[in-house]
Amino acid sequence: MNIAFVVIGEEIISGLTDEKNFKKVASELYDLGFSLYLQVVGDRKEDVKFALDKAEKFSDFIICSGGLGSTSDDITRKVASEYFSLPLKQYEEAVEYMKRRLEERSGRKYDDIPDYLKIQCSFPAGAEIIPNTKGSAFGFKIRKGEKNFYFLPGVPFEFSAMFDEFVLEDIKKLFPNAFKYEKAVFKIFGLTETQIENHIEQIGIPDSVIRISYFPSFPEVMLRIIGKKHESFFEFIEKVKDTIGDFIYSDDVNKSFKDVVSDFLKRRGFSISVAESFTGGELSNMITDVAGASSYFKGAKIVYTADAKINLGVSKDIIERFGTVSHECARELARAAKSKFKSDIALSTTGVAGPDKLEGKNPGLFYIGVAYPDNKVESFEFFFNIGRKNLKVLGAYLALKIVLDFLKKTDGK
Amino acid sequence: MNIAFVVIGEEIISGLTDEKNFKKVASELYDLGFSLYLQVVGDRKEDVKFALDKAEKFSDFIICSGGLGSTSDDITRKVASEYFSLPLKQYEEAVEYMKRRLEERSGRKYDDIPDYLKIQCSFPAGAEIIPNTKGSAFGFKIRKGEKNFYFLPGVPFEFSAMFDEFVLEDIKKLFPNAFKYEKAVFKIFGLTETQIENHIEQIGIPDSVIRISYFPSFPEVMLRIIGKKHESFFEFIEKVKDTIGDFIYSDDVNKSFKDVVSDFLKRRGFSISVAESFTGGELSNMITDVAGASSYFKGAKIVYTADAKINLGVSKDIIERFGTVSHECARELARAAKSKFKSDIALSTTGVAGPDKLEGKNPGLFYIGVAYPDNKVESFEFFFNIGRKNLKVLGAYLALKIVLDFLKKTDGK
Repeated sequence: MNIAFVVIGEEIISGLTDEKNFKKVASELYDLGFSLYLQVVGDRKEDVKFALDKAEKFSDFIICSGGLGSTSDDITRKVASEYFSLPLKQYEEAVEYMKRRLEERSGRKYDDIPDYLKIQCSFPAGAEIIPNTKGSAFGFKIRKGEKNFYFLPGVPFEFSAMFDEFVLEDIKKLFPNAFKYEKAVFKIFGLTETQIENHIEQIGIPDSVIRISYFPSFPEVMLRIIGKKHESFFEFIEKVKDTIGDFIYSDDVNKSFKDVVSDFLKRRGFSISVAESFTGGELSNMITDVAGASSYFKGAKIVYTADAKINLGVSKDIIERFGTVSHECARELARAAKSKFKSDIALSTTGVAGPDKLEGKNPGLFYIGVAYPDNKVESFEFFFNIGRKNLKVLGAYLALKIVLDFLKKTDGK
Repeated sequence: MNIAFVVIGEEIISGLTDEKNFKKVASELYDLGFSLYLQVVGDRKEDVKFALDKAEKFSDFIICSGGLGSTSDDITRKVASEYFSLPLKQYEEAVEYMKRRLEERSGRKYDDIPDYLKIQCSFPAGAEIIPNTKGSAFGFKIRKGEKNFYFLPGVPFEFSAMFDEFVLEDIKKLFPNAFKYEKAVFKIFGLTETQIENHIEQIGIPDSVIRISYFPSFPEVMLRIIGKKHESFFEFIEKVKDTIGDFIYSDDVNKSFKDVVSDFLKRRGFSISVAESFTGGELSNMITDVAGASSYFKGAKIVYTADAKINLGVSKDIIERFGTVSHECARELARAAKSKFKSDIALSTTGVAGPDKLEGKNPGLFYIGVAYPDNKVESFEFFFNIGRKNLKVLGAYLALKIVLDFLKKTDGK
């Protein structure tokens, strides 16, 4: 089951504007098992015809967006007329609709509508009009043998409404079987794509599984599994959860890692504070990105220098004996933050962000310290040579993961 | 002059991830007069071959991105091998490179590289390797008669570097005429697209200007002007600089706003510290994103609560009289940070990030305080109702802009 999507728009092909409608199409159709094909071309007749031809070769179902306005660069009607060899014809019902709309908006009576709007009432003869309840540009549908072509305006909220009200209804009629599959989504931190794949292969993939997809977005991976409504599919999903559950932070596409940590902190009733060195604000920034953070975030100190660390409460002796990049310093920092900010939990980070060495230690080496509600303090060593910005992000994630693992195991206050 | 771009990626065709590389390609090539054609397909062999075939029909120059990782859904190497009828062959130079990289990252010695990395060292026999200085996935180039195919990894910062270093150089050789125009790029913070456009219309656009493009990327705008090598063009560019120069932070595409602030801090020899409330780490994070920040960044305190503000040195009386979201508190915070961290300059932020009101004040209201080397202290009020995350980013930018304006006017230490 293939579906082709053609975007017609100079503003997109020039890189000025992001294409926004494909995401809508994909989010409605991909998980149903459709293979999608996207083409984007500028406002050149020959390019649009080229794309329509390829779309027709790929699929019986072709959705196009854009180029239905009333200026000279809106060429979709003209191109469609030439492509299907159907002359452009003014649809009187469209003119009437446009007139009513104009009268409603202005509160005045109109004998006729302006020329620039009349342009939008012309379609290849035989086309079916697709109503636009959100704007003035109609869409249209053309059948050519077994092929269905849908032309919709590019304005996202118009496109989206017309897609739901008209195109999706057609798809449901044409492909009833597509709307019957099961889907599981897991958002994962702490395993690479390859590691997840290895685990899944060891579990064994039943025939009821239709598609397994990995979507890495540093430092996370999203895993999506599509399958048939069958016992073996549900068993497989349960096994996946049993095997890599420690690394799955959510099965809700709309939940971010920081959201989940925030939810757990609120649920357990613990407050948190931070002393961060090499992450330089990344960790606090993640925490405060979540609305409502002020109810559990007691504050942070960015202790970028040895002096700032001593000032927060790390003993000079510790730094002289072990250096700032050490287990000992990470633990002292966490302890100091907890006491200074009077929080239940405190996190610390200290390491070499790079690109230069620090205290003779290589970029990529870092320590995370954590002070728990019972005043126990732990520290962890990591080494990843992945560049300054990635290292900061990964450091912040790992610190939050340590907290999350603790929060999962405790009953809270 | 046509150029085809093929994106291979299930994560994009499924609507989960935004395609990010086409914008780079378009921003480099569209203004030079190339007609671009974009296709996006999922990780299905037949779909990729279909797209390659269409790309080949459209153009002699084909750029592909994605599918070069090491898991089973990374099919680009295999598809290319079949499409060009060239068997896959392990490139020993690639294996050697990968081994060195691994050793550098881990600090250990390796006799051999793991299988999953070896996969990334196989290419269709005869392909030319495109080096990847930012990651592990090599690219490759295949010539087929007059046709040039380039396969690059989809990770944006890898793609971008390889595109600049390799593909663009090839394009320059193949299409020398396209590169004969003059180009000016201005990176702007502090004006909207419309405001810039108004300024430019008032200056008057000479015939020698071929195209003016605006690329907004919150909260910045990049302005690009292409024109003929003519006196009137250069005069126009000078007038643009005279008119909006205060908001142009760089004319170098590769310089970020934070880089420019960092350069000025180093050049003037001033250190800086931060006390941030509603920006919650965003400001410190921006400062510490730049390598070498430790030479001038003395540290920060994230003073999210009233207590934390008092603890840093804001008087209780100020908070009781004016609230934490006030000119007075912003100034006290800046003063306190400067004295606590012993820095030459200190910045503070305090405001209502939202979504809820704070102290009866609306989300979007915020203050920035700044303490200068001569101990003068200023504060500024802003109001933008743009949502929590955008507000944090804008607040951090505005704080740095205040420092940048000061640094431009001073001789430094």
